[in-house]
Amino acid sequence: MACEFKLRRQVEFAETDMAGIMHFANYFRFMEEAEHAFFRSLGLSIHMKTDEGLVTWPRVHAECDYLLPLRFEDDVEVHLRVQERKPKAIHFHFVFRRLNASPPEEVARGRVITVCVTYDPAAGRMSAIEIPPAVAALIEPAPQAGFAPAQEAR
Amino acid sequence: MACEFKLRRQVEFAETDMAGIMHFANYFRFMEEAEHAFFRSLGLSIHMKTDEGLVTWPRVHAECDYLLPLRFEDDVEVHLRVQERKPKAIHFHFVFRRLNASPPEEVARGRVITVCVTYDPAAGRMSAIEIPPAVAALIEPAPQAGFAPAQEAR
Amino acid sequence: MACEFKLRRQVEFAETDMAGIMHFANYFRFMEEAEHAFFRSLGLSIHMKTDEGLVTWPRVHAECDYLLPLRFEDDVEVHLRVQERKPKAIHFHFVFRRLNASPPEEVARGRVITVCVTYDPAAGRMSAIEIPPAVAALIEPAPQAGFAPAQEAR
Amino acid sequence: MACEFKLRRQVEFAETDMAGIMHFANYFRFMEEAEHAFFRSLGLSIHMKTDEGLVTWPRVHAECDYLLPLRFEDDVEVHLRVQERKPKAIHFHFVFRRLNASPPEEVARGRVITVCVTYDPAAGRMSAIEIPPAVAALIEPAPQAGFAPAQEAR
Repeated sequence: MACEFKLRRQVEFAETDMAGIMHFANYFRFMEEAEHAFFRSLGLSIHMKTDEGLVTWPRVHAECDYLLPLRFEDDVEVHLRVQERKPKAIHFHFVFRRLNASPPEEVARGRVITVCVTYDPAAGRMSAIEIPPAVAALIEPAPQAGFAPAQEAR
Repeated sequence: MACEFKLRRQVEFAETDMAGIMHFANYFRFMEEAEHAFFRSLGLSIHMKTDEGLVTWPRVHAECDYLLPLRFEDDVEVHLRVQERKPKAIHFHFVFRRLNASPPEEVARGRVITVCVTYDPAAGRMSAIEIPPAVAALIEPAPQAGFAPAQEAR
Repeated sequence: MACEFKLRRQVEFAETDMAGIMHFANYFRFMEEAEHAFFRSLGLSIHMKTDEGLVTWPRVHAECDYLLPLRFEDDVEVHLRVQERKPKAIHFHFVFRRLNASPPEEVARGRVITVCVTYDPAAGRMSAIEIPPAVAALIEPAPQAGFAPAQEAR
Repeated sequence: MACEFKLRRQVEFAETDMAGIMHFANYFRFMEEAEHAFFRSLGLSIHMKTDEGLVTWPRVHAECDYLLPLRFEDDVEVHLRVQERKPKAIHFHFVFRRLNASPPEEVARGRVITVCVTYDPAAGRMSAIEIPPAVAALIEPAPQAGFAPAQEAR
């Protein structure tokens, strides 16, 4: 049973914008990479052929709070934690830390809800299904401490 | 005084992923394009040299609820509305509609909070400032009706 | 019969990088958008279900010469011309012009070779096929004048 | 003195498109990441403040030959070699190999020409300069064997 995962990833040049910082949409790609690496760490894939057909995990919600900008070549830790495991969905929580600051500093915080679906590529149709038992058996919610929302700096 | 804007935009091939649908991070690019086009429609730019230096608008929060998938060549309307205008920030609300469905159907809903900052590219430092009066004079909140959150389908 | 197409497109913020200019990989997305819009202008799609199965057009070669940088909000014309139509491939040539310069100036030049394939998504296999007659009947090479390579500034 | 570098990198979900393969524009991001990692391996950065101002390395040419498609979670080696070092430019050559095939197989081949420039972000102007001696002293061309162009499969 696993409830968390840490991805370490550098900010690439193509991920910056003319303001000199990482473009805000790219944080969602970092979260996705952490989510997929978490699945792989459990011997799973986000895109699996099963007896029930092709099983994949589209998002129904994604959000991010940006606390401090990330820059080119920053060394980033994306800390994924499972917030909830519902029958058909998983709620993930993410903390972004800049490791090349001393001490390391929290720079962003995110949340993603993914739903388990079967997908028929020919028909292009997705239907939510219960998370397969073999997957559900490997994923559990993290202890609740530390899930406070980012401080509102608005 | 303006409180809303509609951007019309097609889903491009490079914006899809192997699940055959628009990748979830790209919705944030659509929202940004609507925000920037809204500024341009008022004779403003999101990146302006002013007496106070370079003024730009980074995000402190972004979120999206995904209701139905978007596909290649879908004809999308991104309807931006100003939800709130705070002294240093603007809260935007977005509704995505697929226009090539009949009747057109809501496919996603988003929210972005941008903060007005001065930016020193040499030092790489951003400081939140009050929205310049010339900008604030042009932007007002939209009437509150219709800002209900997307129905929770989780 | 058509041999050319012009796409008009603005440089978006997310397409810039920290050097303040459009990231070099994004020129290939502009070329692709022009190619797909060219197909649509002929009543075709780059991704078509036909009697021979799913027909799509992956690239076997792509290149770009960068003459002058493009910047945020530049108004760009991407001028596609058909350079050659081989039995299984089309060679496209592209000229990028900045329309908000006076006079408009050439800023980049590209070339893409796409091959017609049938694709079996289940097996994940692609096989080159002859361009279907209904497609070949609509596309012809442009007159050869003007295909000189970009001047070498290396 | 260094003349080559190997980057190892997985294909991420967001890098695929609806054809189920890595989108062709993303190969250029892989090449850039290899180029930047090569610079870092020498203690350099692609974006450096020097006595001559900000020194950066835009591309004047980029190309790619696509031999076999790359897919989600493929384990890719990008093998960068320095083809030529001119007074103001470096010519890089790249070979992409899929390491999770047995034996590993070549899937693409690329070439990029980068020019050394000083950049004034305020004026937005770039001027080509001679490669600084401290940089030139660290980079040399690779032995010429193995630079045959990809076999034409067009």
